[in-house]
Amino acid sequence: MGMGMARNALAAGIDTRGYDLSIAACETFAEAGGMAVGSVAEAASDVDVLIVMVVNAAQAREVMFGDNGAADGMRPGSVAMMCCTIAPKDARDIGKELLDRGLLVLDAPVSGGKVGADAGTLTVMASGPKEAFDIARPVLDAVSGRLYAVGDEPGLGATYKVVHQLAAGVHLAVAAEVMAFGAHAGCDPEIVADIVSRSAGNSWMFSDRAPRMLDDDFTPRSTVDIFVKDLGLVIETGYATRTPLPLAAAAHQLFLSASSMGHGRIDDSAVVKVYESVTGSPVKRRSLQGNGS
Amino acid sequence: MGMGMARNALAAGIDTRGYDLSIAACETFAEAGGMAVGSVAEAASDVDVLIVMVVNAAQAREVMFGDNGAADGMRPGSVAMMCCTIAPKDARDIGKELLDRGLLVLDAPVSGGKVGADAGTLTVMASGPKEAFDIARPVLDAVSGRLYAVGDEPGLGATYKVVHQLAAGVHLAVAAEVMAFGAHAGCDPEIVADIVSRSAGNSWMFSDRAPRMLDDDFTPRSTVDIFVKDLGLVIETGYATRTPLPLAAAAHQLFLSASSMGHGRIDDSAVVKVYESVTGSPVKRRSLQGNGS
Repeated sequence: MGMGMARNALAAGIDTRGYDLSIAACETFAEAGGMAVGSVAEAASDVDVLIVMVVNAAQAREVMFGDNGAADGMRPGSVAMMCCTIAPKDARDIGKELLDRGLLVLDAPVSGGKVGADAGTLTVMASGPKEAFDIARPVLDAVSGRLYAVGDEPGLGATYKVVHQLAAGVHLAVAAEVMAFGAHAGCDPEIVADIVSRSAGNSWMFSDRAPRMLDDDFTPRSTVDIFVKDLGLVIETGYATRTPLPLAAAAHQLFLSASSMGHGRIDDSAVVKVYESVTGSPVKRRSLQGNGS
Repeated sequence: MGMGMARNALAAGIDTRGYDLSIAACETFAEAGGMAVGSVAEAASDVDVLIVMVVNAAQAREVMFGDNGAADGMRPGSVAMMCCTIAPKDARDIGKELLDRGLLVLDAPVSGGKVGADAGTLTVMASGPKEAFDIARPVLDAVSGRLYAVGDEPGLGATYKVVHQLAAGVHLAVAAEVMAFGAHAGCDPEIVADIVSRSAGNSWMFSDRAPRMLDDDFTPRSTVDIFVKDLGLVIETGYATRTPLPLAAAAHQLFLSASSMGHGRIDDSAVVKVYESVTGSPVKRRSLQGNGS
């Protein structure tokens, strides 16, 4: 997703440097006309805005505060835009530490996935001081289709994102439960998917993921383990705020089960395999259910 | 919903009789140009197609087989079109009994609610013999926007409908969990609803019901107790087919909790009150949260 954001910043005429642990990613960015650099420190030194797009809070801390981290090299008053999905508590803690070093912080998680990042149409849920929004405006405009300014303090952006992930994660598990129930109760999975996706039972996730289940195609676009993490953040935030979340808790157990079965690194729609392994009824379309299936 | 279907049959030029326990409903139908009759037997005698739209299997049995029931008066070879949402087992049992009396049966539950019934755009999931579909065709065309012919035997239509209700019911409970989580974690409920409804977290139910939660408007359009029943059918069918349904089971408990709190007869979006009663954080929009709230 960082690649898509960097390329869209570049396309908007913003002088953009990029760094990734993957040398191939750096090369791709250089081929696209960007300036690929050799370290986090080099990417962060003397910029107006630094976008950090990593997978969790540990990586965010490493990038900002590790050896040769970004925070040391950044100019006071420049903006650290933290785009990863992390717990609100981590967003607050990291934000405070950056503030103490004289930096401005946007707690700015995004929604829209790789597709939205590539298209420059991400939804950004950001909290931070007005000054940070003003400085980061050209970058925000370049990468987002919709910007929600949700408050002044780090932690609020993360909270909105975690709340959103509850909906996305549980809906995906519901899609699996619906498809598996239909298949095991004697319905044609293809007709189930068609009825549900055109009726009051539809969800964005159902429309997007049920076809992958029908196609038996679990090429990873987003993985089971990402939802193990994201619903983990949901449960952790529910725990911290004393909010009972029975549906999110049940869905988290299903993703954990899929990961435990060895499916952590394949597409998140593979959560359906938990149900299939129990019922023995495949959800893929009947035309794919040959004798060997 | 029966009223909407009867009026659309009438509008399609089909000679239509209507009967309802409510005299007011009969009067409304007569004013619309229909022929309101005084009993089930009178409505059913000598028709080509009888539509039965009642709330559960007990009512369906009463209408068909009770004193002065419809089955006795119907012409052999005419079609009983059973549109209520009932368990597949009940649909099979009722269907067999009607078949034994020489009637044709369509197990034909619908989706789309009162809005779809009034507009003639219901989704119909029907199973039955080809002959029954042929005879009922003009009626099916008049009341439905989409017709799924899902098999020959009664019970299959009911199964598809129950599978669909799993999705609808769980998604409504998820909408409540999302809104309550956001409110209790410090988000603005209105912004949560806006973000989720425009993102990968959206569902048809979320878009439709979250605004009612924000507006604190629980005027019954469909009630909590309808989902107590429908998710009850889901669980019962899961039990009968040995399909574990952890998300549906958790959602059913939430609707049962709402009903237990005394909210059974108000709008189904009142399932959010279960969460509010626990967290103490209202989900209605902040402009409605006066001092007295």
